[in-house]
Amino acid sequence: MNVEQYMTDVGRQARAASRAMAKATTEQKNAALQACIEQLNAAKEQVLAANAVDLQAGRENGLDDALLDRLELTPARFDGMLEGLQQVATLPDPIAEITDMKYMPSGIQVGRMRVPLGVIGIIYESRPNVTVEAASLCLKSGNAAILRGGSESIHSNQAIAQCVAAALASVGLPSAAVQVVETTDRAAVGALITMPEFVDVIVPRGGKGLIERISNDAKVPVIKHLDGICHVYIDDKADVAKAEAIALNAKTHRYGTCNTMETLLVAEPVAASILPRLAELYAEKGVELRGCEKTCAILPQAIAATEADWHTEYLAPVLSIKVVDDMDAAIVHINHYSSQHTESIITEDYSRARRFIREVDSSSVMVNASTRFADGFEYGLGAEIGISTDKIHARGPVGLEGLTSQKYVVFGDGHIRQ
Amino acid sequence: MNVEQYMTDVGRQARAASRAMAKATTEQKNAALQACIEQLNAAKEQVLAANAVDLQAGRENGLDDALLDRLELTPARFDGMLEGLQQVATLPDPIAEITDMKYMPSGIQVGRMRVPLGVIGIIYESRPNVTVEAASLCLKSGNAAILRGGSESIHSNQAIAQCVAAALASVGLPSAAVQVVETTDRAAVGALITMPEFVDVIVPRGGKGLIERISNDAKVPVIKHLDGICHVYIDDKADVAKAEAIALNAKTHRYGTCNTMETLLVAEPVAASILPRLAELYAEKGVELRGCEKTCAILPQAIAATEADWHTEYLAPVLSIKVVDDMDAAIVHINHYSSQHTESIITEDYSRARRFIREVDSSSVMVNASTRFADGFEYGLGAEIGISTDKIHARGPVGLEGLTSQKYVVFGDGHIRQ
Repeated sequence: MNVEQYMTDVGRQARAASRAMAKATTEQKNAALQACIEQLNAAKEQVLAANAVDLQAGRENGLDDALLDRLELTPARFDGMLEGLQQVATLPDPIAEITDMKYMPSGIQVGRMRVPLGVIGIIYESRPNVTVEAASLCLKSGNAAILRGGSESIHSNQAIAQCVAAALASVGLPSAAVQVVETTDRAAVGALITMPEFVDVIVPRGGKGLIERISNDAKVPVIKHLDGICHVYIDDKADVAKAEAIALNAKTHRYGTCNTMETLLVAEPVAASILPRLAELYAEKGVELRGCEKTCAILPQAIAATEADWHTEYLAPVLSIKVVDDMDAAIVHINHYSSQHTESIITEDYSRARRFIREVDSSSVMVNASTRFADGFEYGLGAEIGISTDKIHARGPVGLEGLTSQKYVVFGDGHIRQ
Repeated sequence: MNVEQYMTDVGRQARAASRAMAKATTEQKNAALQACIEQLNAAKEQVLAANAVDLQAGRENGLDDALLDRLELTPARFDGMLEGLQQVATLPDPIAEITDMKYMPSGIQVGRMRVPLGVIGIIYESRPNVTVEAASLCLKSGNAAILRGGSESIHSNQAIAQCVAAALASVGLPSAAVQVVETTDRAAVGALITMPEFVDVIVPRGGKGLIERISNDAKVPVIKHLDGICHVYIDDKADVAKAEAIALNAKTHRYGTCNTMETLLVAEPVAASILPRLAELYAEKGVELRGCEKTCAILPQAIAATEADWHTEYLAPVLSIKVVDDMDAAIVHINHYSSQHTESIITEDYSRARRFIREVDSSSVMVNASTRFADGFEYGLGAEIGISTDKIHARGPVGLEGLTSQKYVVFGDGHIRQ
C-alpha cells in the first residue's frame, strides 16, 4: 500500500462527503445515529471477536495493563457506546442556526449562521469506544471525519467502521463521511496532518509527547489538549469546610484525569490551621505530599518539592503543596506554572473571587468548586471531543459547537454599496 | 543586532505586557486611545517628516506608484488615523463580558467570559496608517501587539511607535503592549511566526504569496486572509433591475478590494435577455469581459475565458462570466472555484434563497446584495483587522471579537463531583 496515495484518497473522499454532510437534515443525522446503534447491536459478536484479536495481540506484544484495559471493549463499554450514540442523537443540532440578525444603517440585514468545519481528523489512543464517540460528534455537527486510532485497536476499529459505514449508507448519507484509517503505518498520521486541502482541523488525543509532535509538524490547525496542571488556591477568607471538601475531591475523586488538581496553594495566614487536617485526609487516601519549605515545616510527613514538581501533571496519588503570601502570589504562581486548564479559588471574599475569575488565564476558572467539574457533560455540552488548552477557536471542553464555525449571512433587497 | 535575540526580547516583553493589558479597565484602555490621539497630534510634524524620509527612499529605490501611494501619510490619512482611534475608543469593550451563565443539575453555575488572546503578531504592508489601526484594535481588545510593517515604512512606523508608547505610559499601561519591530531584517518575521511561547496568533495582511509563505512556516496559529474570488449568481427568478444594479456595483464600485466580484454566473434561461444590457453597463466602465462558450455566443465582444480565469482574483476592471444551467450548477461552480470569501445570489425565489444561504460554503453568503458589503464596518463590527477566509476561530470580517477568546467560569458554593 502506498500510504501517501491512500491518505490522499481518504482525504478526497472525506472532502466530497463533507459537502453532503453539511446539507444533511437533523432528521437524517439522527437517523444515522440510530442506525449506528442498530448496526452495532447486530454486529456485536463480530465487534467483540475483533476486539479479542486486538487484545490477544496486545498481550503477546507485552502491552501494559493500563493499555490493555483501555483497549478492551467490555460489555459495559459496548453498552456505553450505544448509550453515547443515543445521547448525541438527543442533542440539539447546532448546524444552520442563525443568530445576531440585525438591520444595518445601509438597510441590509446581517447575521451569523453556524456551519460545520468540514473535515475533522482525529488521532487517538487504542480505545475503540472513542471511535464511536468521535464519529457520532462529527456526524451530528455535519462534519466528515477521518479517524486514526492507536494501531493496537485496528481490528476493533475496522469492525466498528463497517457498522458506521453501513449505518450512513442506510439513511442515504455518504459512507465516506466517517472513515477509519485502515493502515497502522505511522506515515498515515504524517499525511493526515499535512493535507490542508482535505482536512480542516486536527484533534489529537493522547500523551503530551504525541500532541506536541503533531502540533509541531501539522500544516492543518490543531485543537490541542496538552496537560492539565490544575491548581486549587485556599484563600485566608475560605470557608474551612468547603476548602477541605474541595481540596480532597479535586485530588482524590480520580487521579488519572486532566482536571485533577496537581498543586494546592494555601494562603499563609491559614496554612498552619488547615494543612494538618487536610494531610490527614490525604493520608487516608494514600496521597503522597510534596511541599515547599513552609509546607514541610507544618507537615513533617511531606517530602521537599523540587522545581520540577510545580511543572508536573502527576496523574497519580501525589500532590504538591505551596504556601503563598496571598491571592496575588497565588495568581502569579498559577499564571507561571499552570497549563491553563482549570484553577479554583476557595474564598468567601467577594472582591477576591471577582478578581481571581478575571485575572487567572486558564480555560476554566472556578470559585468554591472542585476542578473535577471541568468537563463537557458537567458544563451542559452533552458530550466532549476533548478539552482545549488553546485560546484559538475553542477553549476548555469542546462539544459540538467546537466542531463548527460561523459564516455571515446577508439579506438585501437589491442593496448596493454607495 | 542579533535578530533572534532581539525578537525573543520583544516576545518576552509582549508576553509580560499582555498580562497587564488583560487586567486593564475599559477606562484605562480608552484613556490610552485618547492619549494616542494627543501624542500623534503633538508629534504630527515629526511623523510626517519621518514619512517624507520613507517616501524619498522609496522613490530612490524605484517603488511603483501604487506602493508609494500606500506609503504616503497624506493629511487626510493622518486625520483618518486619529478618527479611527476615536472610533475604536467608542466601541464597546468586549473583554470580561460573561454570557450564557446557567445553573447545572449539579448546582454549579457555568458561563463564559470573554478574554484577550494574549499577544498578537501583525505582519503588514508598508502602510503606516495600518500601524495605528492595528495597535488600537489590539489595545482595545486587551491584547499586546507586535507589529511588523513593510520595511519601506520603517521611519514612519518608528515615529508612530514612539507616540503610542508614550500614550500607553501616560495612562499607566506598559509601553511594551504595542511594539513595532525595529529592524527591517526579514529574519524578524521568521522569528515572530515561530515563537508560540510568546505569540498567540499571527494576522498577516498583504499579498497571497506572503500569506501562504507565513502560513506554511508558522508554528503559531494564523488568521489567514487569502484571496477574494467572489461570485454573483443571477438566478432565472431574479428581479432584473436588482440584478443589474448589484452585478454592476459588485464589480465596479472598487476594483482592488477583496470583496469585489470576479466571476458572474447567470442562469441560462435569462442569460440572453440580461447579459447584453449588463455588457453595455460594463463597457461604459471599461470592464473587459471574459466568457464561457455560451457567454461569448451572446456577447460577441467577450473574450473566451480559460480555466485560469475561474481561479483568478483580477483586482482590475476584468470580469469572467459563465452561463450555468441553474442554481445547483452555480453552487457547484462556486464551491469549486471560490476562495470562500463572499458570494451573492440574486433571486426572488424564497426556497432557492434559503438553499443558497445554507449550501454555499463561504465566509459571507448574501441574497440580493452586493458582495461589496462584506466588510467589518458594514457588518457593524466597528472596525476590522482583516477578513478571514479560514474556518477556524474567525470567519469573515474580523473585529475586536476575533481578537478574543472565551474561558469558562464556574461559581459554586463548596460543590464537589459525586
